[in-house]
Amino acid sequence: MTDLLHYEDIEVNVPFTAGPKLVTREEVIAFAREYDPQAFHLDDAAAAQSHFGRLTASGWHTCAMIMRLFVDRVLTRVAVIAGGEVNELRWHRPVYPGDTLTARFFVTGKRISTKRPDTGILSVYTEGFNQDEELVISHKTAVIVKLREVGPGGA
Amino acid sequence: MTDLLHYEDIEVNVPFTAGPKLVTREEVIAFAREYDPQAFHLDDAAAAQSHFGRLTASGWHTCAMIMRLFVDRVLTRVAVIAGGEVNELRWHRPVYPGDTLTARFFVTGKRISTKRPDTGILSVYTEGFNQDEELVISHKTAVIVKLREVGPGGA
Repeated sequence: MTDLLHYEDIEVNVPFTAGPKLVTREEVIAFAREYDPQAFHLDDAAAAQSHFGRLTASGWHTCAMIMRLFVDRVLTRVAVIAGGEVNELRWHRPVYPGDTLTARFFVTGKRISTKRPDTGILSVYTEGFNQDEELVISHKTAVIVKLREVGPGGA
Repeated sequence: MTDLLHYEDIEVNVPFTAGPKLVTREEVIAFAREYDPQAFHLDDAAAAQSHFGRLTASGWHTCAMIMRLFVDRVLTRVAVIAGGEVNELRWHRPVYPGDTLTARFFVTGKRISTKRPDTGILSVYTEGFNQDEELVISHKTAVIVKLREVGPGGA
């Protein structure tokens, strides 16, 4: 037995809060250089001419930073099998170097898989905020987790 | 004037193909260490015990690699303002170190913004494939682009 949380242990609609995570200029540029080399994620002068007015983090970088908060705060405590789909991913506001991110995760529902009755599916609603408590990102994901094994004397 | 493609230039339902992109073991681990430190993305022995059976790329890493293909193949040629929302993001199969990714992007629709009539919104359907032409990821995104400026003698 481990002390990981299994499907049966997960409470619905109890928020997990996570962070803070400081967004550094160095990592904004490093991520963009590798994965999203658009000028407004890489270069101050180009960013000043852009819609955003100054250097912003790639939206996919914001996803990745929020994932790290989710892993550290939630998934390390849970018997995870895999991540599932993502729906309604929205970038509500830009994320700038120097911002400090926090996140809130809600398990909004759970059900046992019909295909694999030893696994459960959690519906998770994720919100990320900046230091002014403005929403910067939100999405809905599914996380696939283990059920507790039924022991020899179990039901 | 630049030679970037503007809203009016974008053809609907003409696919752009991109890649190949080799997924290295080093970058799978580097991304996971920074953004998704779950054991099955970091450690061969733990991954062997997992649902996946061997080391896999973080799903968010796959998103980021596909974004890079999209930027290089499409966005560098387009007068982009910003990325919009993502819907129906699905990870259909795991991505393993040593895989070679390709991608296909379709503009499935376009419309002029009602809020800002100088901007257009493209609906983009993205698919990522491995070297066996198996679908590994798909999603629907919106990309916000500029309209061509109407000149002094324009309509």
